[in-house]
Amino acid sequence: MRKARYGGANSLDNFIARKDDTFDWIMSSKDVEKMLGDYWKTIDTIVMGRRTYEVAVANGAGGGHAGIKTYVCSRTMKKPNTKNVMFVSEDAADLVRRLKEEEGKDIFVMGGGVLATSLFEADLIDEIAINVHPLLLGSGIPLFHEMSRQINLELKECRQLTNGCVMLTYNIKHL
Amino acid sequence: MRKARYGGANSLDNFIARKDDTFDWIMSSKDVEKMLGDYWKTIDTIVMGRRTYEVAVANGAGGGHAGIKTYVCSRTMKKPNTKNVMFVSEDAADLVRRLKEEEGKDIFVMGGGVLATSLFEADLIDEIAINVHPLLLGSGIPLFHEMSRQINLELKECRQLTNGCVMLTYNIKHL
Repeated sequence: MRKARYGGANSLDNFIARKDDTFDWIMSSKDVEKMLGDYWKTIDTIVMGRRTYEVAVANGAGGGHAGIKTYVCSRTMKKPNTKNVMFVSEDAADLVRRLKEEEGKDIFVMGGGVLATSLFEADLIDEIAINVHPLLLGSGIPLFHEMSRQINLELKECRQLTNGCVMLTYNIKHL
Repeated sequence: MRKARYGGANSLDNFIARKDDTFDWIMSSKDVEKMLGDYWKTIDTIVMGRRTYEVAVANGAGGGHAGIKTYVCSRTMKKPNTKNVMFVSEDAADLVRRLKEEEGKDIFVMGGGVLATSLFEADLIDEIAINVHPLLLGSGIPLFHEMSRQINLELKECRQLTNGCVMLTYNIKHL
């Protein structure tokens, strides 16, 4: 079955962006670019919430990505679907449960943790991959929000990158 | 000059204990024991806040550690000093600044992040060493609290342990 994968670049103190949604602190390097290139080849679907979509629009990525279906989950936002972007008012857990039963490559759950939290609670996330940056942002948008239960992980890979970042990949131990 | 070092075991979602102060999820292994043994040889002073002291007392470690001076910072708690434990009402930043100017081994800033936050803000912490455990606690006592500014780090070591933990050590880039 295709997997639902969560993650992204984060600070050591668990933030994926500053409070004003900026992420200019994210560092790139040749090994990160290669890794991201390989990562994108393994997914064909993105699921995100309204907040992440608005940040994507503000950063010029509102049209989605060629060859990838993006689902934006929002109960309030009404927008016509485009070629690559679908707006759904369905419960995010129901959507991801349904998508996981379809054929396809993996599903990337993108953005801040509000949407991901409901998916973690429903035990629908299969993998976490985070690129821990060498800094404490001090405040911002958390990658992991509070949850009602503990989730156990299995370390799949720990990889030190050339720029001081550390890529950590975990499998979720399902209930 | 001797260094002030902060850290400990934490969950991937930035908690050092559950909300009820328990830490039964901390995993041990031979390589961790060896590493901790080596670590304790490099410090002769512990600085902690009242909350951490109370947890230490509840866990039978209120008497401190032989050969190590423990300073408990609290403006409200009045207790007589013991052989190894000193209770100080002095501002934590003033205390650590003074201790760093004395001769000695390194200083371990222990516990939840309330005390550490004031020391980070005063640019007095020199090193962070955390043992990232493969789990999301969901809630608890944070290792890193909100701070008024960004702190840049330099990755010193990334070490994958046998039990799925990852030891990350960083030098603080001072202001």
